[in-house]
Amino acid sequence: MKGFFYPRSATGRSSLIPPPPWHYSGDLLTIEYRTDPKNVAALLPAPLTPADEDPGAVALIWADWQSCGDSKEELLDPIRAQYKEAFVVVRCKFDGRTYSRCVYIWVDKDFALLRGIHQGYPKKLGSIHMTRPHPFGPAPRLAAGAVFGATLAAADRRIADAVITLRGEVEKNGFVNGHPMAHHRWLPAIDGKGDAHVELIESTGAKFEGGKPWIADVESFRLYDVPTEELAGLEVKEIIGGYYRQIGVTWNGGRSLVPSP
Amino acid sequence: MKGFFYPRSATGRSSLIPPPPWHYSGDLLTIEYRTDPKNVAALLPAPLTPADEDPGAVALIWADWQSCGDSKEELLDPIRAQYKEAFVVVRCKFDGRTYSRCVYIWVDKDFALLRGIHQGYPKKLGSIHMTRPHPFGPAPRLAAGAVFGATLAAADRRIADAVITLRGEVEKNGFVNGHPMAHHRWLPAIDGKGDAHVELIESTGAKFEGGKPWIADVESFRLYDVPTEELAGLEVKEIIGGYYRQIGVTWNGGRSLVPSP
Amino acid sequence: MKGFFYPRSATGRSSLIPPPPWHYSGDLLTIEYRTDPKNVAALLPAPLTPADEDPGAVALIWADWQSCGDSKEELLDPIRAQYKEAFVVVRCKFDGRTYSRCVYIWVDKDFALLRGIHQGYPKKLGSIHMTRPHPFGPAPRLAAGAVFGATLAAADRRIADAVITLRGEVEKNGFVNGHPMAHHRWLPAIDGKGDAHVELIESTGAKFEGGKPWIADVESFRLYDVPTEELAGLEVKEIIGGYYRQIGVTWNGGRSLVPSP
Amino acid sequence: MKGFFYPRSATGRSSLIPPPPWHYSGDLLTIEYRTDPKNVAALLPAPLTPADEDPGAVALIWADWQSCGDSKEELLDPIRAQYKEAFVVVRCKFDGRTYSRCVYIWVDKDFALLRGIHQGYPKKLGSIHMTRPHPFGPAPRLAAGAVFGATLAAADRRIADAVITLRGEVEKNGFVNGHPMAHHRWLPAIDGKGDAHVELIESTGAKFEGGKPWIADVESFRLYDVPTEELAGLEVKEIIGGYYRQIGVTWNGGRSLVPSP
Repeated sequence: MKGFFYPRSATGRSSLIPPPPWHYSGDLLTIEYRTDPKNVAALLPAPLTPADEDPGAVALIWADWQSCGDSKEELLDPIRAQYKEAFVVVRCKFDGRTYSRCVYIWVDKDFALLRGIHQGYPKKLGSIHMTRPHPFGPAPRLAAGAVFGATLAAADRRIADAVITLRGEVEKNGFVNGHPMAHHRWLPAIDGKGDAHVELIESTGAKFEGGKPWIADVESFRLYDVPTEELAGLEVKEIIGGYYRQIGVTWNGGRSLVPSP
Repeated sequence: MKGFFYPRSATGRSSLIPPPPWHYSGDLLTIEYRTDPKNVAALLPAPLTPADEDPGAVALIWADWQSCGDSKEELLDPIRAQYKEAFVVVRCKFDGRTYSRCVYIWVDKDFALLRGIHQGYPKKLGSIHMTRPHPFGPAPRLAAGAVFGATLAAADRRIADAVITLRGEVEKNGFVNGHPMAHHRWLPAIDGKGDAHVELIESTGAKFEGGKPWIADVESFRLYDVPTEELAGLEVKEIIGGYYRQIGVTWNGGRSLVPSP
Repeated sequence: MKGFFYPRSATGRSSLIPPPPWHYSGDLLTIEYRTDPKNVAALLPAPLTPADEDPGAVALIWADWQSCGDSKEELLDPIRAQYKEAFVVVRCKFDGRTYSRCVYIWVDKDFALLRGIHQGYPKKLGSIHMTRPHPFGPAPRLAAGAVFGATLAAADRRIADAVITLRGEVEKNGFVNGHPMAHHRWLPAIDGKGDAHVELIESTGAKFEGGKPWIADVESFRLYDVPTEELAGLEVKEIIGGYYRQIGVTWNGGRSLVPSP
Repeated sequence: MKGFFYPRSATGRSSLIPPPPWHYSGDLLTIEYRTDPKNVAALLPAPLTPADEDPGAVALIWADWQSCGDSKEELLDPIRAQYKEAFVVVRCKFDGRTYSRCVYIWVDKDFALLRGIHQGYPKKLGSIHMTRPHPFGPAPRLAAGAVFGATLAAADRRIADAVITLRGEVEKNGFVNGHPMAHHRWLPAIDGKGDAHVELIESTGAKFEGGKPWIADVESFRLYDVPTEELAGLEVKEIIGGYYRQIGVTWNGGRSLVPSP
């Protein structure tokens, strides 16, 4: 039986996702802020502990992606390559090292959702939109003074939105999402008694290229309190900064930090 | 950390799916047919073997659901309860018993997709539509002579469609989907080398009620050959029959037949 | 050139909507309430004036439809037949008669939107959901004590939602939407100077059948203040009642009350 | 009552579209080809006649837009600004001049559909996708050798798709869509007897800027025969060429060529 994940068949042709490596081109709009560190700590299951420095730092990152496997065929049937996502990253510590960890994430395509199950991202479907830079007409250029908006909704409710104004080029687009990811891969037991699989894994990009990050003023940033989400519980105490960056990345698997017992 | 599957948090409130039991109200439109038994056998990984009788029998089932957890709260925010699916069932044998097995399935909501990962259903997103019975106006009643259509698409391509005419009430809506399900729960290894979790599980409905099934003439039934799917590879040699039924079911977990090594 | 509306071609086969009559099967969930009469009056262009009685009465109606032209072919390719809508109706007076008038409406399919342009409904796309009655499982029966929810969103924002509990059968499902509709058909001038077409029309159902209406307690009813909508401006002073009804209707055109000059 | 089109209210705030001018930033992927001139002629209602030169020329154009009114506010709530479309353009003659004319068009947002009704575009909803150029990662740069795909579907059926390879910069991205548009604005009579409004209008861009067009090899180009569309009736006799271009345009109304009687 062939096929990286579901479905599997004799040929693997209908499998929703090809095997890694997975390649991505995309734009990232990042808002970094501080919440009460106890809000972050409450989202860290053992054996993870809060980061030593700035343990209340949070990044909400919008991303507009084109992605594909090694054949790149998805790029030419772009409904299978293009997706958008918004994800919330905090930092944590394991075995003396600092990790980034995605605590909430929404995507708008099934292949992205299934990749996430593999990678330990807690994915739901959502509706994600970002202003896109363009060289002509009313859309903003990638230049000082350009204004970008980003919105997030799920289950017919607005969850977050932001507006930023680019100020200038900088060296880094934030620090919260700058470490290897430490994620739990969970599979609940089929009899409902606990988990059949519990694994702490580490993964990071296998290849990276990108333009200069832009730092930005955060003109507005709202987290909406909705009954089906808990993002607003990471309430904003202080804005750290806004960022915009265009990148290319490759993801090619990770390694177990704590294998399933 | 609470939450049945992803995401998990201190409260579990934002978890995409509640813990089982899961309750369903819905309508099923079923087409049963025979393909070459080797097409079915090619979809059965070890230790499953073809069913003894009628090993080429296939059911393509469209379903229009409302589902919820024990609190039933999803029913009142129906974007979280309503979904449609189309799934392909074959039969197989394990340890001397006959099982049903879903080999392809498309749903139109994320909560249904994630439930499927737990249950070993090979779910993708799709666009699924079925004529609905109605007591007034042009839509069909549940009565002899009533005509129903069903369609399935994914990634902007039509994959299957069918039209049936109800003929009369019968005792069973087919036999292919009538056994406990035998599904594989797979989780690929994070380092890309094989699977981290491979488990053969059995599950069946915990509770069932339903109206009388209707048997139907299959007026048309087409499987379209599209590059991203393999359903058309289960080519139709002979139509067995069409069925329509309204049911209520509860699913409350299953058990491991072959636990992950 | 054939085709009732757009597009037109030699055959008319690709036209988005067939010529009337249009036939509908569907369920209506209605909330009637009173707002300040000046809020209604502000939505009535000349020559319409407020209704004599209860001029602040408003109905917000959710509907789950299957619709088709005379061939009924859409019912068997149900993506072309099924749609949901939510619409806001007030009453007004013209030439001594009382009319109903739709002031806001959201639908989830293009064919419904284009039919609305013909009929003078001010249609936008939205995301509309209603609990559906079902004879089995957790979904409600059409019976006393049954609880139904309804939600409305557009542009990724929740606009309205409601929960009702059925109490008993009654003779009418409200009075606000009980008159012929008086709608304006507008087409702005292509040079941007006013309207090229301004017509006041009257239309009503050509045929009607239906079950007994159910009266219901309104458990919750919220209109959300969002930047792109004005429904919340029709603020709720007093709930009149909730209703649920299954109906079949045919629409077959109307007549000009005030033709375009 | 304020509001450019539907709905109208005291403030106009909830109107689906602002008054022109409308500003657009976007990318165009164009395939030009020749069909039998009688196929084009069959789509031209009187008083339009076929173009003198190359009367069988057709352009199928995919476009990925961000659009807004003069306030530009939609750009920052991008679900209200971003849309994609695919449209089919032929040429025709009226009063001694050559015009372009859109004969079929699909868009993926309601505001674009309603603008189209105003402009005489025969809009339906569809699902439109185009590979997007990107400076990093696997997506193509705007450069010789770059490969782009484009797809079109509606009502769950694939209607057209294409793959092109950029070859070099040229002066024009085709000629079929290079004239002012001659469109009919139709509004069927409310009593079903003919049209209440029939107007032939001319419109063209009020402002234009753009990058150098790229000429491209057409690697594949398919029009699918589906029951609800007639695009495949404009069958391909000969490919003229493929093009890719980034542009900014403003549309600010047009003028009547033949006013409604």
